[in-house]
Amino acid sequence: MENFTFYSPTLYEFGRGAEEKTGMLTFLMGVKKVMIVFGKKYVKANGLLERVETSLSAIGIEYVEFGGVAPNPTDDKVYEAIALARDKHVDGMLAIGGGSVIDTAKAVAAGVLYDGDFWDFFSGRSDVKKALPVGVLLTIPGSGSESSGNSVITKRETLQKISLRTDSILRPRFAILNPELTFTLSAWQTACGIVDMMSHIMERYFSPTSRVEVSDRLAEGLLLALINEAPKALSDPTDYQARANIEWAGTLGHNGIVGCGRREDWVSHFMEHEISAVYGVTHGAGLAVVIPAWMAFMAHHKPSKVAQLGRRVFGVEAVDDRTAAIEAVASLRAFFSAVLRMPLDFKALGVAEPDIDLLVKKLHEDKGETIGGYYRLTSKETRQIYELMLPATAE
Amino acid sequence: MENFTFYSPTLYEFGRGAEEKTGMLTFLMGVKKVMIVFGKKYVKANGLLERVETSLSAIGIEYVEFGGVAPNPTDDKVYEAIALARDKHVDGMLAIGGGSVIDTAKAVAAGVLYDGDFWDFFSGRSDVKKALPVGVLLTIPGSGSESSGNSVITKRETLQKISLRTDSILRPRFAILNPELTFTLSAWQTACGIVDMMSHIMERYFSPTSRVEVSDRLAEGLLLALINEAPKALSDPTDYQARANIEWAGTLGHNGIVGCGRREDWVSHFMEHEISAVYGVTHGAGLAVVIPAWMAFMAHHKPSKVAQLGRRVFGVEAVDDRTAAIEAVASLRAFFSAVLRMPLDFKALGVAEPDIDLLVKKLHEDKGETIGGYYRLTSKETRQIYELMLPATAE
Repeated sequence: MENFTFYSPTLYEFGRGAEEKTGMLTFLMGVKKVMIVFGKKYVKANGLLERVETSLSAIGIEYVEFGGVAPNPTDDKVYEAIALARDKHVDGMLAIGGGSVIDTAKAVAAGVLYDGDFWDFFSGRSDVKKALPVGVLLTIPGSGSESSGNSVITKRETLQKISLRTDSILRPRFAILNPELTFTLSAWQTACGIVDMMSHIMERYFSPTSRVEVSDRLAEGLLLALINEAPKALSDPTDYQARANIEWAGTLGHNGIVGCGRREDWVSHFMEHEISAVYGVTHGAGLAVVIPAWMAFMAHHKPSKVAQLGRRVFGVEAVDDRTAAIEAVASLRAFFSAVLRMPLDFKALGVAEPDIDLLVKKLHEDKGETIGGYYRLTSKETRQIYELMLPATAE
Repeated sequence: MENFTFYSPTLYEFGRGAEEKTGMLTFLMGVKKVMIVFGKKYVKANGLLERVETSLSAIGIEYVEFGGVAPNPTDDKVYEAIALARDKHVDGMLAIGGGSVIDTAKAVAAGVLYDGDFWDFFSGRSDVKKALPVGVLLTIPGSGSESSGNSVITKRETLQKISLRTDSILRPRFAILNPELTFTLSAWQTACGIVDMMSHIMERYFSPTSRVEVSDRLAEGLLLALINEAPKALSDPTDYQARANIEWAGTLGHNGIVGCGRREDWVSHFMEHEISAVYGVTHGAGLAVVIPAWMAFMAHHKPSKVAQLGRRVFGVEAVDDRTAAIEAVASLRAFFSAVLRMPLDFKALGVAEPDIDLLVKKLHEDKGETIGGYYRLTSKETRQIYELMLPATAE
């Protein structure tokens, strides 16, 4: 266990009807005129946007709408929103949606108060020193962005998908989570969200730091909860309790608590970001392909933590670490495939002929010569992992 | 899972040398003159107080010392500290110690800004509406007070030991945790702290609310971590990693995260508070006597959650809930006794002839005719539980 600072001051309002508190919570964060960021038609069609606006108006808060944010959100929408936010003099952000919407709102929150190009924060040229307060009404769980200080934006021109990580300045002041709002998510969206949640937990779990028993047990507990609840939500999309447990696990999986006291990994995310930036696949589906490949590589090169996952989460009984790790990979693949109906290789992901040269090149250009917290990977090794994602050849 | 609000804005600074940040963190909470609350000689003798004062002075913060707080802290020290704090015009509190010191600092923080008698907050006559900011440097883990908005104070005159619970106004702004500061705790202090931590987790775990899979898994994970690390810290008091995991588990066990979305129980605490108020026993040791008795009663009256604890934490395999619950009680008693060397009955606790009439009477006077979240207990039933704490009669 290493030294750490943990500070997670987001207020979570969780449960049926929680969205009715949007006005009050926005008021409490001291905002007079808020920009509402959302995605496609959905929040308009189902009346949610109108209900939120009523809740804001009732307490005297003005608002400006900014819709049309798409999955894998891009810098052009951020520039557009920053210009509008400045023009309208908004002093706070309210994201209604999932990770793409929240991440856009965060980038705008930082960009509005910055004289230079907001992309400086993502390229590492500058640090976020001030930002408008951000509130979230979550409708698509998975990204964990409602509980993190992070934002992931893709630069359209170069297809760089970059994750900006801040300690707390971009952490939402509040996050409203009503599991009922997730009833209408498709099985595909639900499953992609669950993979993303599990990945946030596992990226922290796969750590070179020893003796992190508390953080390990929390990670394993959240994974067990997700594995237990996922089939229930998929077989009955209106199972409130399954939806509630999944949503809350996703939030806790990314608020930092699972990472306390240890170095984290994040290679699976880096590798997937290259895939989704180039091929536009859904992040969660991409992760379902990447994670088992990364784990299979580790089963042969550094099996210990993969074996622990297998034993404590999947009930693997093998005594030998390598065998236990291989069985863990098989268990996870079976869960992704049979329960979540996720793709497990490039082809099933819709990428028939992946340009692995390009993916490896971009990956190491963006992230450095070697990458990874759990195990340091060279470009030769990341190539091997990408190759493990190719469909099995006919026998 | 029920609706809930979760807000835990305490900043945790964890690790070796963390206490060096006391001055900076006190400064960041906007305090100019702080009252340092501590217990007996210890913090003076080992130089910790001096190091903290140096850290405060270095950043220009004045301080007033208030020492001598004893275990099971009483109202008279709170009155004394409030008078001193007003006289010296302090604008913040810094607690250096364990639960007794932190709870005293919190009571003072609320009392200083209140025109009436601070006991009004504990008697339920008034709510805390404002309070000085409180920071904590933890030296005795167990109470979880560093992460909660609660304070437990005993009224000397009537021996009422009352817990005041606030949402966030009395939550410490920061908590500094350096596991090295716990190396000198005796095996007894260490074990009492671990029982207290486990009790905070179990009081929330024993809930009538169904489908709280995430909160259950987190609770079980923290218990597993404590059970795994406890023998290591007891056999080697300077095992930093064991001390670190125990301290962090204790903090997370009481910051509210384990209770999200469910009704909690707290009867074991209520029953123990009567024992320690009347007989002055150490809270953790008292809990080691109370909890297994409460669980044994439940094994016969409502075994389901006790059985789940047995299966998921102690590896009990019995299919029948009642049998599994009975085995869970036996496992917990064995852990308390063989590993933690805790007393398991009144006599071993040092209370040779407990006045059960008095305990039952005070309990229901303080807490109402029936008590408990998991199972509603009448005075006849709480008497039965107290009687289960009597030593087994000779065969």
